Amino acid sequence: MANTSPGAPVFYGQDAYDNLNVYLTENKASQIFILVDSNTHNYCLSAFMSKLHTDSPIEVIEIEAGEENKNLDTCNQVWNALSELGADRKSMILNLGGGVVTDLGGFVASCFKRGISYINIPTTLLAMVDASVGGKTGVDLGNLKNQIGVINNSQMVLIDSAFLNSLPANEMRSGLAEILKHGLISDEGYWNKLIALADLNLEDLDEIIEESVKIKADIVAQDPEEKNLRKTLNYGHTLGHAIESYFLTHTTKKSLLHGEAVAAGMVLATYISSTLKGFPQEKLKQVTSSILNMYGKIEFSQGDIQEIIELMKYDKKNEYGKINFVLLEDIAKPHIDCLVPNEVIFDAFIFYRKF
Amino acid sequence: MANTSPGAPVFYGQDAYDNLNVYLTENKASQIFILVDSNTHNYCLSAFMSKLHTDSPIEVIEIEAGEENKNLDTCNQVWNALSELGADRKSMILNLGGGVVTDLGGFVASCFKRGISYINIPTTLLAMVDASVGGKTGVDLGNLKNQIGVINNSQMVLIDSAFLNSLPANEMRSGLAEILKHGLISDEGYWNKLIALADLNLEDLDEIIEESVKIKADIVAQDPEEKNLRKTLNYGHTLGHAIESYFLTHTTKKSLLHGEAVAAGMVLATYISSTLKGFPQEKLKQVTSSILNMYGKIEFSQGDIQEIIELMKYDKKNEYGKINFVLLEDIAKPHIDCLVPNEVIFDAFIFYRKF
Repeated sequence: MANTSPGAPVFYGQDAYDNLNVYLTENKASQIFILVDSNTHNYCLSAFMSKLHTDSPIEVIEIEAGEENKNLDTCNQVWNALSELGADRKSMILNLGGGVVTDLGGFVASCFKRGISYINIPTTLLAMVDASVGGKTGVDLGNLKNQIGVINNSQMVLIDSAFLNSLPANEMRSGLAEILKHGLISDEGYWNKLIALADLNLEDLDEIIEESVKIKADIVAQDPEEKNLRKTLNYGHTLGHAIESYFLTHTTKKSLLHGEAVAAGMVLATYISSTLKGFPQEKLKQVTSSILNMYGKIEFSQGDIQEIIELMKYDKKNEYGKINFVLLEDIAKPHIDCLVPNEVIFDAFIFYRKF
Repeated sequence: MANTSPGAPVFYGQDAYDNLNVYLTENKASQIFILVDSNTHNYCLSAFMSKLHTDSPIEVIEIEAGEENKNLDTCNQVWNALSELGADRKSMILNLGGGVVTDLGGFVASCFKRGISYINIPTTLLAMVDASVGGKTGVDLGNLKNQIGVINNSQMVLIDSAFLNSLPANEMRSGLAEILKHGLISDEGYWNKLIALADLNLEDLDEIIEESVKIKADIVAQDPEEKNLRKTLNYGHTLGHAIESYFLTHTTKKSLLHGEAVAAGMVLATYISSTLKGFPQEKLKQVTSSILNMYGKIEFSQGDIQEIIELMKYDKKNEYGKINFVLLEDIAKPHIDCLVPNEVIFDAFIFYRKF
């Protein structure tokens, strides 16, 4: 049965493992399947296993790392593995990994024998502050992101920032983009605090992760079905997803992480906000320079821009053929369902290139 | 958002079309996609279209007919077709077909952009009395039936028995098995009425279909999550599914429809019930002779039987490695979660072969 309550409980640090172990004792699984990718198999699995205490038999299922494997073929492999290993309706999946593992593993669990329980243990900053919270599961369809999925909450989310010690810098930056977004859409004080940080160290991080998870969970709790407020979490994503898809499928382009694409998408959306919603010019400059300082600038040719705009029509958030943007009147003052003429999108790319 | 209310409303005959058209006016879809297979494209689509009144644009998506196409590959084709045709979150799918179309179409809708609305218009007797009611959606995984799916109700179910005029006799018999099951598990009077019918004509059918839908819907409403009572609907299916899977993958065997396999499964389960639950011998003979008169006898070799028993361990209803049977103490007195030793299953096949 789909678990569509507003949110799964989120636990942090050692408390997370304590809660997990109590949960596994009280809800005995016939088998526990730990889903990892090649990275988390190497860097996270043994640390995680050492904290896990259960009588249930444990099997590890590994998928290939990388967004290009977040697809139905990989689901099919995992479903077949579960089937061959004798998984039943009382089996449980623990997703140990980044957003690919938690999104795909959540979808796999939600559909296996019409739904088994799963728990998310995000190991990347992006998955901690975004993917693992809110019940969205799914995979890509061709180069279209998250087209296939369901909303179904995990039983709990366990956040242990120690996993971030092994995370490459670009992956940290990728997660930071969603954190910055939380500031931009809902809390100017938080935004200012974030851009004032010279660097991310682990102590700041614990606090920031909790603050970001709280912002996201509050929004999701108020609008689990994404009818209005939850749409604001899409800030920077309409263009960000299209940019990400475009770079994913053009192998001659350097690969781009989700948050890197979203960071560019936020600069573009903030420019569009200044044009259409009166977002203050001074803050537009601050947002743009802060983001470009952290992320550098992506090269977009005229042809790239045209294809990216074309790709946007497949965004899940669109209805009746209209492309829906989230725009900001100011920091923490979002507007949803904004229609944006293509010319303004072109102008935004020009602003980005020239800045 | 998953629609997990106990049941979708079911409408019959002309009233069904009236309700559909009102619904489509009040819940305007950006596009309507009618999912058909090659059979319903030929025999049902034009009649259905002539009753459909809507301003929304309509597209038809056709899949190959047959249980062997109820799989993720076909889902992938439909998802890609939806994507290419510009389907969005306000699109709607109308599943016009038998259980393959309604199960697969329901799953496709439930996962497309994390869920769009769908309506079932079953065109076979089996789909009318079983597949289209109760919110179970899904596809097969290899030769394992319905391993991948979700529970998510359609917006409504429309039953027009006129579609049965074009249905082959073996397909009618296949649907009848679920109807007989409804009698066996819940209503001895209904069972006696059914076996007294010399033949199925359309007038009897309308009444029988409504009675069977009511029995199923009542059971589902009392236990939507299949924790206890709903499991009784699995009567005859533990062995029936295994028999069906076995014949599906052994191309040298004559092909077997779902209900034909379930009919044999019910004879076997009734024998097992007589051995383990004291099901009355006299009624065992009546059940067996009634079913064998209608369905004839399937040939099972010793090797077939062994492989079928092996296949049962993949049944979705199993937990902790135990094979769970529904058994009857008497007609309309079901017991769920019964463990059955393999020897008794073998004996049941011997009883079936010798009867």
